[in-house]
This record gives sequence, C-alpha cells and structure tokens, in this order.
Amino acid sequence: MDNFNYHIPTDVYFGKGQISQLGQRMSAIAKKVLLVYGGGSIRKSGLYDQIQQQLQQADVTVFELAGVEPNPRIQTVRKGVALCKKEKIDAVLAAGGGSTIDCAKIVAAGSCYSGDAWDLVLDSSKIQKALPVAAVLTLAATGSEMDGFAVISDMEKNEKWGTGNDVTKPVFSILDPQYTCSVSKYQTAAGSSDIMSHTFENYFNNTKGAFLQARLAEGILKTVIRYAPIAIDHPEDYEARANLMWASSLAINGLISYGESTAWSVHPMEHELSAFYDITHGAGLALLTPYWMQYILSDKTVEKFAAYGVNVWDLDASQEPMRIAEEAIQKTRAFFTAIGMPSHLKDLGIDDTHFDVMAEKAANGGLAQGFVPLNKEDVKKIFIMAL
Amino acid sequence: MDNFNYHIPTDVYFGKGQISQLGQRMSAIAKKVLLVYGGGSIRKSGLYDQIQQQLQQADVTVFELAGVEPNPRIQTVRKGVALCKKEKIDAVLAAGGGSTIDCAKIVAAGSCYSGDAWDLVLDSSKIQKALPVAAVLTLAATGSEMDGFAVISDMEKNEKWGTGNDVTKPVFSILDPQYTCSVSKYQTAAGSSDIMSHTFENYFNNTKGAFLQARLAEGILKTVIRYAPIAIDHPEDYEARANLMWASSLAINGLISYGESTAWSVHPMEHELSAFYDITHGAGLALLTPYWMQYILSDKTVEKFAAYGVNVWDLDASQEPMRIAEEAIQKTRAFFTAIGMPSHLKDLGIDDTHFDVMAEKAANGGLAQGFVPLNKEDVKKIFIMAL
Repeated sequence: MDNFNYHIPTDVYFGKGQISQLGQRMSAIAKKVLLVYGGGSIRKSGLYDQIQQQLQQADVTVFELAGVEPNPRIQTVRKGVALCKKEKIDAVLAAGGGSTIDCAKIVAAGSCYSGDAWDLVLDSSKIQKALPVAAVLTLAATGSEMDGFAVISDMEKNEKWGTGNDVTKPVFSILDPQYTCSVSKYQTAAGSSDIMSHTFENYFNNTKGAFLQARLAEGILKTVIRYAPIAIDHPEDYEARANLMWASSLAINGLISYGESTAWSVHPMEHELSAFYDITHGAGLALLTPYWMQYILSDKTVEKFAAYGVNVWDLDASQEPMRIAEEAIQKTRAFFTAIGMPSHLKDLGIDDTHFDVMAEKAANGGLAQGFVPLNKEDVKKIFIMAL
Repeated sequence: MDNFNYHIPTDVYFGKGQISQLGQRMSAIAKKVLLVYGGGSIRKSGLYDQIQQQLQQADVTVFELAGVEPNPRIQTVRKGVALCKKEKIDAVLAAGGGSTIDCAKIVAAGSCYSGDAWDLVLDSSKIQKALPVAAVLTLAATGSEMDGFAVISDMEKNEKWGTGNDVTKPVFSILDPQYTCSVSKYQTAAGSSDIMSHTFENYFNNTKGAFLQARLAEGILKTVIRYAPIAIDHPEDYEARANLMWASSLAINGLISYGESTAWSVHPMEHELSAFYDITHGAGLALLTPYWMQYILSDKTVEKFAAYGVNVWDLDASQEPMRIAEEAIQKTRAFFTAIGMPSHLKDLGIDDTHFDVMAEKAANGGLAQGFVPLNKEDVKKIFIMAL
C-alpha cells in the first residue's frame, strides 16, 4: 500500500427531504450565491423553487448561471466567472448532475484567478483558491459532488480535459435520491456505467497490497450491478436510487484510490469520443471498457481479472484464471448491453475518420502510466475493435 | 436506506514516515499542546523523541499527560483537564492506541466545560465544544483516530461508558503502520477482534436496503480475516499492518454505518466485563461475539447470517441458509481461537459472581435497540453460555 493523505472534507446530507438543510448551511458561508444549473429540468421538477425558497428564507441573494451543457463548455465557465467577479459573489451552488457541478467548480476557481479560466483546465496546479462550492445532486454518475475534479470542454478546439484539486471539493452536498427518479432509463444506465468505470479505473492498478481498497471497490461494483437494472425497470425504486447515488460518491471521492497508484485508462479514451462527437460520457465508457479489458488481458494481468470475476461476478474460483478472466469480461460486456448501452462506435455514428488524432490525444492523457501502459497505436487498435 | 448526515472531517496522513507532517500541521492550530500518552512504549520506540523534535522545530510548546491506562480512567482525564485550563493549552495530541486517544478527546472536551468531566461521559450532549484533537496512532483497534467516540471508566464505581460527538473528532491523525510492528501477538489479535466487532455491530442491523454499506463492511471483515494471522505470525509485515490499520479507521468512522439504524450489542456486554475485571477489550469481544451470534440466530436473523457466511467466508450459497449461518458462526469462533483469543470466561478468571449486576447494566446500555433486542435475562444467558 502506498502512502496517502486522506482529505474528504465534504459534508453530505443524504436522503429524502435533505434540501431543508440548504438555507442554513449556505447562509453560514455566503451572502451572495451563484446558482448554476443546466437545461431547466430543475424547474420542471420543482427543485428550482425549493432552492429559491431555502435561500430566500436564509437571506441569501441568488444570481444565476443557467444552461450548462452536458459536457460543460469553457465559454459557460467564463460567463459565470465574469458574473462572480462583477457581483462579488461569495459561493457557487450547483444544482444538477456532474456537468453542472464541474462547471460550478471551475467558475469558483476562476473567480479567484486573474487570468483566463482555461488556464486552470490545462493546469490544475494553477488552481490555488476557489469560492466555496456546494451542490444539490440530481444524477448519480460522476461523483463530482464529493471530489475536487472537473472536466471542461472547448468544443471549438475539440478539447476536453480534467482538472481540479482540494480547493474545489464541495463544502457540502445534498444528495436526495428522489431527485434521480425522473432520470431517463438511458441516462440512468449511462450514469451507472460512469460509476462502474470510475471504480474500474481505481481497481485495476499495479500497487501491491492495497487489499482493503480492492474489496471496497468490489462492493461498489456489486452494488451498481445489482441496482442499475432495478432503477431502469422501476425508476421510482428508492432503494435502488439511493444505492446508486451513494455508490457514485464513494467510487471517486478517494476512498478506493487512496494508497494506490492509479492512472486512468478508459476515461482519456472516452474523452476523445466526447470531445469529437459530443456523445454521452457514460455510454462511451460502457462501450469502450470491455474492449479495453479484452485488449489488456494477458498473463500479466490475468490474476487481477480473475479476482474481479470471482469477487464481483461470483465466478467459480476453481476454474483456470484465464477462463475466469475471459468470462468476467464477457459478463461485463453483457451487463452494459443489458442496461441499454451501445457496444459499437458505429451505433453512435462514429467512424474511423478521426482515430489517429483521437488516439494521439488520448495517449497524451496519461495512458503511459495506466494499469497496462498504452500508446497511440494501442488506443487506435482499441478504437478499431470497438468500431 | 435511512437518511444520514455524513461528516468525517479528519485528515489522515497514512504510511511510512508521515510523522514528518506533525510539526507543520500542529503549529497551524496550536502554540501550546498537551501530549497525552500511556505507559512509555512510545519512549522505547523512539516515537516520543520524533514527536518532541517535530513540535520543537515548529515552535509548539509541549505539556504532558503520561500514564493513560488501557481502559482510561476519569481520574486521568481530570488531571489533563486541570493542566489544559491552568496552562491555557490550545490543542491535545494523543500518541498511542485507542485508550490514549479516547482520554485525549475527553480532556479536550473537559477543557471547554465548566463542570466535572464525568458529566460529559454520562451525557454526550453536554459536549458542546472541545480543543482540537490530533492523534499519532500506534495500535490498530478502536478506530478512535477517525471518529468522535471515547470510552472512559471509573473503576471505583465499576462504570465504563461511551461518549463523544462531532466536536471530538480528530482534526488530523497520523497513521504509520510501522508503529504497530512492535505490538505483541496478543494485542494484535485483540485489536483485530475489536475491528471485526465494530464491523459486526454495524453490519448486523435491521435497516432495509443499505446494500452498499453491507458490502463495504464485508470488505473490511475479509481484510481483517486475511491479515490478522499474517501480522501475528510476521509482526514486521508492512502490508498486513497497513491493511489492519486502515481497516481499524474505516470500520467505525461512519462509512459502514451511515444510512443504517445501528445499536451495538456486544460492546455493551463486553464493557461490563472490562468494568468489573479490567480485561483486554478486544479479547472480551472475541470471546462474547460467537456466543451472541449463536444466541440470536433464528428464522428471523438467518438471512443476514447466511449472507455473512457466503460473502465473508465464501461458504457454498447453494446450502440451506440455516446451515450456512451455523457454519459462519463456527468459522467466526474458530478464527478468534486460531488468533489466540480466549473462548471461555473462566479462562480469564471470571465466574458468575457479578452476572446479575453486569447483565442489568449491559441491558441498560441500549441492548433493547439492538439487531435482536436483548434484556437482562438474555444477557445473563449469554454470559452463562460463555462461562
């Protein structure tokens, strides 16, 4: 197990009706808050009114940044930063899914930075300070509600990068699973795939002896495998929504990665798909993951995949490890297919036009440090397998 | 899953040499610190000198409360409180195991309280404020390094109670597994039993649908089952010591209990053994746990025990649930015996002399709210089974 510094300061108010905590908590840190949200689903659901009521009652003045995109754009971030600076806003409150929270984080950091916010996306070490960030979560997926990360795109440049650090971790987040009951079957499946992918990215690593972390990761995977189908078939099932929502936070808040050297592999590849084709992030992850697993399975990695098969998929441990590993990958693929995720790039209208440049950019996104180091040629092969 | 408010603010510096963080972190919160420790093992190990050096270099003045007992006494807490008040001390630093940290917490709370510190032990709601607490951990067991709890005894009254709340959660804790390599085989086994017992107390609950928490708890149990025997046979095995140490924190910091209605059963019973006979807490837990499991196994609880057997002990899921449950309890008993824990009260020199009063006091410790509610007669029967 590697050394680590554990720092997960976000307070989480989890469960039915926890929005009632918002006013009091927000007024303790801000007089003026920027409310960041997306396409207006929070108006339809009534959450917008609940938030306004909470903040009004607590004497907090609300400014708004609406229309955050599913893959949030730097242009939107810049608008938010300008508003925060102009109005001397004290805190940023995201109401939505990961994209909205990610946008809010870089707005918060950009408001304390003299240069252009895109600098902070390209170089997270430039994020030295940020306004306090809080979140009301409406989608179980990215885990942005409890970590410091943010992924921001510049579609004009086909660029999409992850950034963030400790100062962009939310001060508090409100997680009411009921808000996710209206999430569509497709987005529920994509969000679940995102949670699983975060867990895989942490689970498949080369650190020796981080046994406890691996077992916790398996627990998260089993949870998503159990509840994603239930949430898709029965959108109002609170137990399923609650387990998925809490899994989303724990998959990426550091719990299962502290003590390990993890470098992500599938996310950098998927970011290129999203940057070039603006597809749903979780769908891209679900599509690529089994091909990535298949590509890296070898005598060197078989032990880890076999443990995955036995501990997560309850495969018979007495079989040959390679057989267990192959079956585990098949199970993974079948699971994603069963919850309605795409399994071929062409189904998403993606052909090999940009494979070279996408593969090169992905390879530059840290793939050389991954569980199995991948170069541009490797990535291109995986894209071709996935066609 | 129940609603919950997640608040785990402790920063953890985990791994080899993390003591190097002490001076800087402490000087940020205190000019004068009370160093709390036990019988002097930290002097032998060199940790005492490391701490003094760190604090001196950071210009922090050190006062000392030495000689904290294995079951820390209120009399010792009072000495610490008097010193803090007299010297206007800013923070309390525990260096040791759970007893030392528990003592430090109530010293910290007592220093901000006008009455007698025993009030705070009897009624945790009286703890409104506390000096910042920090810890350097030398024993993997109680999890006190990352939670707000403290157990304090008054041996003159044969009383031992748990107390604490959010304000007594350590601000930061340093967890270097190397410090635990010198822990004896017996204390390693007792500490591991304590970790498992915390996990059991949380795991066996009646909340529906806290699936994720149950899987995480199973991960912690599997970790202790794997590594306790290794640490006992090979005390210098860093991987074993690291996994046990991190498991100790995660078993009780809230991770596996948030979202569940948990009320502990075996701890209140064991507290009576310790209060009357001053035995090692973990040994008492290891002794009582299998008898408690056996006593409460019924058609109503069999499902949970069968899940425990399948998921933790890898028992054949195709068997009858009652058979799996019984085998799981046998495995639990055999495990504790194998790591050298006692299995009969008489082995500890305990007879039935005080069973009536011990059973009554334990029953008043919240057992009516447990996984299976227990009254005085139930507890007495369990004690008799354990004779």
